[in-house]
Amino acid sequence: MILETAVFSVRPGGADLFRATFAKARRFIETSKGFHRLELRQGIEVPDSFVLVVWWETLEDHTITFKQSDNFIQWRALIGHLFAAPPVVHHYSETV
Amino acid sequence: MILETAVFSVRPGGADLFRATFAKARRFIETSKGFHRLELRQGIEVPDSFVLVVWWETLEDHTITFKQSDNFIQWRALIGHLFAAPPVVHHYSETV
Repeated sequence: MILETAVFSVRPGGADLFRATFAKARRFIETSKGFHRLELRQGIEVPDSFVLVVWWETLEDHTITFKQSDNFIQWRALIGHLFAAPPVVHHYSETV
Repeated sequence: MILETAVFSVRPGGADLFRATFAKARRFIETSKGFHRLELRQGIEVPDSFVLVVWWETLEDHTITFKQSDNFIQWRALIGHLFAAPPVVHHYSETV
């Protein structure tokens, strides 16, 4: 199982709308092949940022299967306009 | 429960030593008040980076209790010389 971390920056004052929109959009991630679980959390030092941590079965479940799916198109259509900057995404391998 | 993310950069070729040293040093985090659990994972895009994700009961359990403890001194004494740059640390609030 691998880990994805995605840091989202939202516009000043946009955090509440982001949270509400994420609640509707998360199912497009959660129903994707290889999804295990996720946590979305708001920044403490930077309240206009959120981290999304997703545990995927494999790297390709995120980077290929999800990214090339209709689920991804619907996820981005719902929430993408709330990003103040491109998400900063990294992947990490099995636990040490 | 809050989340800490710490991204560590190690010197080129230093990843194996970092993993081995972390195995010895992790107990100084794991025995600290308010610690719940942690995951250390190596970067896929950037193999000379690691993310340490720690679930703490409160922000202060990390930023005050741990950071001002003898455990922190011992953690840093064991592993700090392996960092190629200062760790990049953020905290995130309760799950959305």
